[in-house]
Amino acid sequence: MRIALLQCLPGAADLAAGLARLDGCATAAATSGATLLVTPEMFLTGYAIGADAVARLAEPADGPAAQAVVAICRTHGTAVLYGYPERGADGAVYNAVQLIDADGMRRANYRKTHLFGEVDRAQFSAGDAPSPIVEFGGLRVGFAICYDIEFPEVARALALAGAEVALVPTANMTPFESVATRLVPARADENTLFVAYANYVGREAGFTYCGLSCVVAPDGTDLARAGAGDETLLLADLDRARLDAARSRVTYLRDRRPELYGATPGEDA
Amino acid sequence: MRIALLQCLPGAADLAAGLARLDGCATAAATSGATLLVTPEMFLTGYAIGADAVARLAEPADGPAAQAVVAICRTHGTAVLYGYPERGADGAVYNAVQLIDADGMRRANYRKTHLFGEVDRAQFSAGDAPSPIVEFGGLRVGFAICYDIEFPEVARALALAGAEVALVPTANMTPFESVATRLVPARADENTLFVAYANYVGREAGFTYCGLSCVVAPDGTDLARAGAGDETLLLADLDRARLDAARSRVTYLRDRRPELYGATPGEDA
Repeated sequence: MRIALLQCLPGAADLAAGLARLDGCATAAATSGATLLVTPEMFLTGYAIGADAVARLAEPADGPAAQAVVAICRTHGTAVLYGYPERGADGAVYNAVQLIDADGMRRANYRKTHLFGEVDRAQFSAGDAPSPIVEFGGLRVGFAICYDIEFPEVARALALAGAEVALVPTANMTPFESVATRLVPARADENTLFVAYANYVGREAGFTYCGLSCVVAPDGTDLARAGAGDETLLLADLDRARLDAARSRVTYLRDRRPELYGATPGEDA
Repeated sequence: MRIALLQCLPGAADLAAGLARLDGCATAAATSGATLLVTPEMFLTGYAIGADAVARLAEPADGPAAQAVVAICRTHGTAVLYGYPERGADGAVYNAVQLIDADGMRRANYRKTHLFGEVDRAQFSAGDAPSPIVEFGGLRVGFAICYDIEFPEVARALALAGAEVALVPTANMTPFESVATRLVPARADENTLFVAYANYVGREAGFTYCGLSCVVAPDGTDLARAGAGDETLLLADLDRARLDAARSRVTYLRDRRPELYGATPGEDA
């Protein structure tokens, strides 16, 4: 599976503008042969736009913006994982990502479970469900959003639930570059899975995003890595052979001792 | 607390020789102002010496070799964490480390819980207890051995049990350099604790040890780092102020969502 990882400036708090930009990026992704475009966190509306704007722009996972993304996916024949503010059935607003495939099917939706600092807590409610795992492009794919992936438990739970790829839209700012350079590769390595981490560059509401978007192989090495400051569409091929080679060489997932430190839900201790 | 981390060639399968070498290293550590010397895994006898030699050299945690280490600690007024083959009361042989303080008190003993490959499995039984946490030098100290620290659960459990320092004797070989350069710094960073990782250099039984011993600060940056090939005594000061600064800035330990991925024993989910 070839994925296209978008590293870009944060957009305006404007759904129409966000959808137009997504359409352009999906065109570029499809042209490059990618079957999936992965955007940064809250791509459709910008991330640090404030609680009022988030509340105004939030929509259900099957709302008008999602229907517009369905049309984009069908038009270009490419899948999209995009970040957006989700209005839950409970009325709360979540920091969410949704995967829509090339046929326009809504395949997965995930709400950020670990809120980061005041910027997240002022804007969002925390999700209370672990990521779904979906078959996509011949691999089992799970999701995390930004701060989520900094917790080793999150990637471990994904791997134990069967994920072979973790797709991670983010809005990671200075001085936290080491998340992109140290923790994300560690997550791939210690779980023998692919991790795709799509970040912003530039500034938004006092934050300076640090780029360094990457696709990391299941042995922890970079398949593709963006710089700290440039907008780019990063391409990487996620090959099952590379996954299988890592999992035959490195046996962390089999060598755990859950009886010593607690089982993950669904796992026998 | 100043620690001295020993990076050295593996020794011979000879307790007297191992104790003589330990005495020399303790002299050097004390001279440098260190209050604690940390050796690589199985320092007293060498690591990959085979099941027969391990069985022949294994002693209880309070056996003659331990008494000799007690004398070394008292003579030089320095504490020692050393690796050795432990003969359990059950008759089994464990890959263990023991902390003896400058007064000659046996403060902690830990048996490796995650055995690595055939080399460990042929020589040792796996420990079944998490690391003790002991107050030492004004900090709470826990232990892991080599492969243990590659599991994020291990360092997380140490931190949640109150550890502020993880002392990690190891015998890490090529091509696994990324454990020293990526995973060990990640463990420090994601748990906001000090990690001291003491490795061998040189060859033993077909393995080439990769050095890169390090002391990593609670923000994931190196306090000290050895090269890949040289014997050295690495010095580092573990300051509480540095720990406190990291823990006030980075709140991973408070922001976990154990209800989503399982609690660690003793923790409420």
